[in-house]
Amino acid sequence: MSRFFSPKYSNLVPYTPGEQPKNMEYVKLNTNESPFPPSNGVYEAVKREAEKLHLYSDPQATVITEKIAKRYGVKPTQVLVTNGSDEVLNFAFMAYGSDKKEMLFPDITYGFYTVFAELNGIKYKEVPLTSDFSVDINDYIGKNTTVVIANPNAPTGKAISLDEIERIVKSNPDNVVVIDEAYVDFGAESAVSLVDKYENLLVTMTFSKSRSMAGGRIGFGIASEAIINDLNTIKYSTNPYNVNRLSQIAGAKAIDDDKYYMDNCKKIIENREYTKKELEKLGFFVLDSRANFIFAKSDKISGKDFYLKLKEKGVLVRHFDKERIKEFTRITIGTKEQMDVFLNKTKEILEV
Amino acid sequence: MSRFFSPKYSNLVPYTPGEQPKNMEYVKLNTNESPFPPSNGVYEAVKREAEKLHLYSDPQATVITEKIAKRYGVKPTQVLVTNGSDEVLNFAFMAYGSDKKEMLFPDITYGFYTVFAELNGIKYKEVPLTSDFSVDINDYIGKNTTVVIANPNAPTGKAISLDEIERIVKSNPDNVVVIDEAYVDFGAESAVSLVDKYENLLVTMTFSKSRSMAGGRIGFGIASEAIINDLNTIKYSTNPYNVNRLSQIAGAKAIDDDKYYMDNCKKIIENREYTKKELEKLGFFVLDSRANFIFAKSDKISGKDFYLKLKEKGVLVRHFDKERIKEFTRITIGTKEQMDVFLNKTKEILEV
Repeated sequence: MSRFFSPKYSNLVPYTPGEQPKNMEYVKLNTNESPFPPSNGVYEAVKREAEKLHLYSDPQATVITEKIAKRYGVKPTQVLVTNGSDEVLNFAFMAYGSDKKEMLFPDITYGFYTVFAELNGIKYKEVPLTSDFSVDINDYIGKNTTVVIANPNAPTGKAISLDEIERIVKSNPDNVVVIDEAYVDFGAESAVSLVDKYENLLVTMTFSKSRSMAGGRIGFGIASEAIINDLNTIKYSTNPYNVNRLSQIAGAKAIDDDKYYMDNCKKIIENREYTKKELEKLGFFVLDSRANFIFAKSDKISGKDFYLKLKEKGVLVRHFDKERIKEFTRITIGTKEQMDVFLNKTKEILEV
Repeated sequence: MSRFFSPKYSNLVPYTPGEQPKNMEYVKLNTNESPFPPSNGVYEAVKREAEKLHLYSDPQATVITEKIAKRYGVKPTQVLVTNGSDEVLNFAFMAYGSDKKEMLFPDITYGFYTVFAELNGIKYKEVPLTSDFSVDINDYIGKNTTVVIANPNAPTGKAISLDEIERIVKSNPDNVVVIDEAYVDFGAESAVSLVDKYENLLVTMTFSKSRSMAGGRIGFGIASEAIINDLNTIKYSTNPYNVNRLSQIAGAKAIDDDKYYMDNCKKIIENREYTKKELEKLGFFVLDSRANFIFAKSDKISGKDFYLKLKEKGVLVRHFDKERIKEFTRITIGTKEQMDVFLNKTKEILEV
């Protein structure tokens, strides 16, 4: 830290992204990426678009925005495309956070929420999940404050129903409810169907998981036009050309090839259920996941040891050194082949 | 605006990017893009990299960061790569702005500075340029506050010398001086040579102008390690994967092909001096530019009329409806052919 750094930020504890090791090839099951490459159309489109890289990207991201709108049955003016969903989430924290009223989100959830809140000087309260790691919606009903819920939640993978989301949104009519649907395509119910009914609902999604584009950095929000206007005010005051040309075209192509990606999601779901069953046979306790990862623990080995021993054997998973969940590891679901490597290494470690 | 929007931001007046019209083909001299496409190596690299789009980009942007460091003779730990230079500038405003002490920058300069200041609740003072549109460095000497200066300045194109920059930096040892060198490759002196000598200097640059990558969104800052650490704290609390995979590889390739881009800069400089001379023959007053644009006015036509009539004739330039400079238009320097179209249309408009 320099001696010039603003006291506003000098105590910030930044988010720690998952390891991206460069020293060796791992079976990489630690950052919830898709094991499947982008669809074929993406490569040529990106190469052709590179010939126009000397020209600014479209600040309105018109083509991809219109395709997303059509795909989700909303108007283009109800969509904001951002540099990953982290960006739309940060904009939402800025727009709807307060230094007076506590924003609510679960104690065990995407680790970036507390960082966004601290960054923006926002008051917040981490609401404990229940003992079985569920969101109890009664904790969020009629609280008259901004609420952020990841659905499915991470790193638990557990989802709440559309009906439950609607009850939260409906009961907080004077505050925005953000539903972070980064993992929704792996088996949860999307709340997008509610955005025309509730002006206080913001749904965020990402191309990083189900659309095989973590490296492209494309996220988006869907909401009422008024909410999208707010977020655009922040975007145009921060970085109007926030999404580069190549990612815009890659994302647009991905929407064209929707079936390829949704078929891949089905494969991931199959592999998830297979992996869960196999782990349970080995005595693991595995939460019921609707995401592209599972959260599991075993009485025979600590979460940290399991993570470290897997790493030694060339398999990367993610461990969070945090009270309540430190006995767990989070395992991204890859191909069947990758999951078999993971399961075999697990058997070696447990000596079964 | 929604009724939920934070009062912190509800009065923000966002930045207005230059027009990016989609309805017809213009000779586009309005957003300071390069008329030259990226170097050949970029296309194939981008296409190959697209096969890895399902994996997150390197949050440390190691390859491009190391290449930039080598190119500019600093350590990789003295470089931060960002999503366009707007991002590193916003981070710098966050890190070194204050709600108590006025940050200083010129009254006529990059229009985003006031927006960044307003966005972040920073006090600032717009210091008037002299009557000939120069930065008078005495206005910034020993002011004991954060200073931001674009060098060359925009939209004037005028530059100050390295010696003058050093005097500003040296005289404000307890505050950061940001030198925004977006246009430096077109003939001004870079202050990068001073970063090892002064821990309070931050130099920002972009790939958008001299490196033909406005659409790739790549900017960077070079400074002392302590300053880069501050900016990294903000980056990792905002968007750790801020630069996507395709832009990282495209930018790295561009550094490999440095000669191509620096040769293009020479062509732009030639075309600038040619255009200036021709405009002067037509009675225009043209500021002395060290950038890839010129700022010009004529007694025969108002800035706004000139802009509108050029647009009618298919040539886009930029006009700022702002006191002191509303008689001017800013003309990006393109190829010789583009500048001849511009000059011919100008003659038609002036009927000479």
